[in-house]
Amino acid sequence: MPVGTAGTVKAVTQDVLEELGAEIILGNTYHLYLRPGHEAIRRMGGLHKFISWPRAMLTDSGGFQVFSLSALRKVTDEGVEFRSHLDGSSHFFTPEHSIDIQIALGADICMAFDECTEYPAERSRAEESLRLTMAWARRSLDHFRAHQHEVPWFNEFGGKSQSLFGIVQGGMYRDLRRESAERLVGMDFDGYAIGGLSVGEPPEMTQEIIAEVLPLLPADKPRYVMGVGYPDQIERYARMGVDMMDCVLPTRAARHGLLFTSEGRMNIKGARYAEDQNPPDTACNCPVCRRYSRAYLRHLMQAHEALSGTLNSIHNLAYYLGVMERVRKSLQPESGVSGVS
Amino acid sequence: MPVGTAGTVKAVTQDVLEELGAEIILGNTYHLYLRPGHEAIRRMGGLHKFISWPRAMLTDSGGFQVFSLSALRKVTDEGVEFRSHLDGSSHFFTPEHSIDIQIALGADICMAFDECTEYPAERSRAEESLRLTMAWARRSLDHFRAHQHEVPWFNEFGGKSQSLFGIVQGGMYRDLRRESAERLVGMDFDGYAIGGLSVGEPPEMTQEIIAEVLPLLPADKPRYVMGVGYPDQIERYARMGVDMMDCVLPTRAARHGLLFTSEGRMNIKGARYAEDQNPPDTACNCPVCRRYSRAYLRHLMQAHEALSGTLNSIHNLAYYLGVMERVRKSLQPESGVSGVS
Repeated sequence: MPVGTAGTVKAVTQDVLEELGAEIILGNTYHLYLRPGHEAIRRMGGLHKFISWPRAMLTDSGGFQVFSLSALRKVTDEGVEFRSHLDGSSHFFTPEHSIDIQIALGADICMAFDECTEYPAERSRAEESLRLTMAWARRSLDHFRAHQHEVPWFNEFGGKSQSLFGIVQGGMYRDLRRESAERLVGMDFDGYAIGGLSVGEPPEMTQEIIAEVLPLLPADKPRYVMGVGYPDQIERYARMGVDMMDCVLPTRAARHGLLFTSEGRMNIKGARYAEDQNPPDTACNCPVCRRYSRAYLRHLMQAHEALSGTLNSIHNLAYYLGVMERVRKSLQPESGVSGVS
Repeated sequence: MPVGTAGTVKAVTQDVLEELGAEIILGNTYHLYLRPGHEAIRRMGGLHKFISWPRAMLTDSGGFQVFSLSALRKVTDEGVEFRSHLDGSSHFFTPEHSIDIQIALGADICMAFDECTEYPAERSRAEESLRLTMAWARRSLDHFRAHQHEVPWFNEFGGKSQSLFGIVQGGMYRDLRRESAERLVGMDFDGYAIGGLSVGEPPEMTQEIIAEVLPLLPADKPRYVMGVGYPDQIERYARMGVDMMDCVLPTRAARHGLLFTSEGRMNIKGARYAEDQNPPDTACNCPVCRRYSRAYLRHLMQAHEALSGTLNSIHNLAYYLGVMERVRKSLQPESGVSGVS
């Protein structure tokens, strides 16, 4: 899932996202709550209409950004008091509030409010954090069930509603992760995410936790690993059985000149590309590789041109979506490759 | 002509420019000379190939930016010594050098090297400046004729070459403007531009100078007014007989949130648009107005999102190109409107 933090996958138009075959994009509840505000978006019919995106969307719970971006005031069992990174204003998020906001935004998939356990974390800290996340998951689900009919498009789609996913936490402690997964599955969410990964731990540990948790989550519901990863990682996780992932990497790296290609990573700022008329990735058929050269993309970066971020992002998104498409095809029974059988 | 300063119409892809119907774009010789350098572009086959733009292009002479952007060292009859605004490095431009660079860039249309007379200017200053520009026009033309076969794509297109336009100067003095026009026409350029306008003078004066000069320029060759203007102005000038214009206004204004619409100028940052779900221009059928709301465009500006510059620019370019399309249609004899008869 390309990440559209503030209601836009940075520097890329919705037209192009559709052309690239993006079926679902992510929006960040924290950002949209602060600006333009969830009530404004609700009044305009929800996020899909507001940003003109008819395909699927997912909103996170806001928790991750509260912990990573804002000036934190206080975490209690009730919720989190924080100051906006934009203007320093004071806000209070509870699980109920996060769900209310996400219902107002009206994405197809909402996420339970959780605390993302930092890395490294002592066992006692991970236990306490997990206790909080499980209590908040319960409250998120109860509040969602009581209010899900309030989604702006409820009547428009014949009483259809959103889905709510629970989030497995537990730090890097396998038994805590198992406990978290089992308790969430007992609550019966519409899908399950593994959160608190890619927070600084070594990649082998990320994979270990995914391998530990995945078999405990029902395979007939979506299984989502949050905030990962590099192309080789998302391919590996997908082959392990992960259905959904999101990551800012393709677009953020693009803005810094890092391209993902079939021959590995390419820093397009490099002087070696100054007169290189090959497409960024000779094996790629994306709108950027069909039309532009490495030399041109390098020039755009050197000249600090806005088009640089746009073209680099389009290629990286195409590359990521291409990785997932190949994995999907190889996992289909008729392909003869038995990734899941 | 949309302006593509450094080989990119800022924030807009070439795909979209084609979709909007842009038939010709402008590149700035000064910028491309400094970065990535005209020799690099020559080695890559010229500007069209470098930026992947198969339609027409025009390069200016570099003179305007030398006078407006760089730290000027000295102007002599021979040429202009200046320091780069990028790194302070020293450079010397002569008419011959400007033409050499423009041949290396290989745009369809080159411009003679001129001095853009500032406003206001004393008569003696305007006379001296005109003398310089006329001498430089002669040298530009002679050098162009001797070297035009050196354009990178000369053989590829069966010995076709570029066109060279002369530039009328003379400040706001009508007789100097007339003298300039007559002398240039005597040199027999492929087309003629009126420069030194939109440099701070009142709009009535701009129009007066255009009206004075235009009848002196051959109507069977392109007549180009440089660096104008607002939509009502370009429409008026086109109806007076001007064939070509360029302006950064549609794209520069776009990046500051100023949209041109059928109902006038719109500052999309305005709070009044916060929940306005109308398209930017209700009478416009551009890709932006077909898909996005004022509220969304306002949000993108508020959030400092790159997509803001892109979408605003696309709309403004569509609006400008639409103005010119309507003028062209109304000037065709079969339309019954006798703008030129």
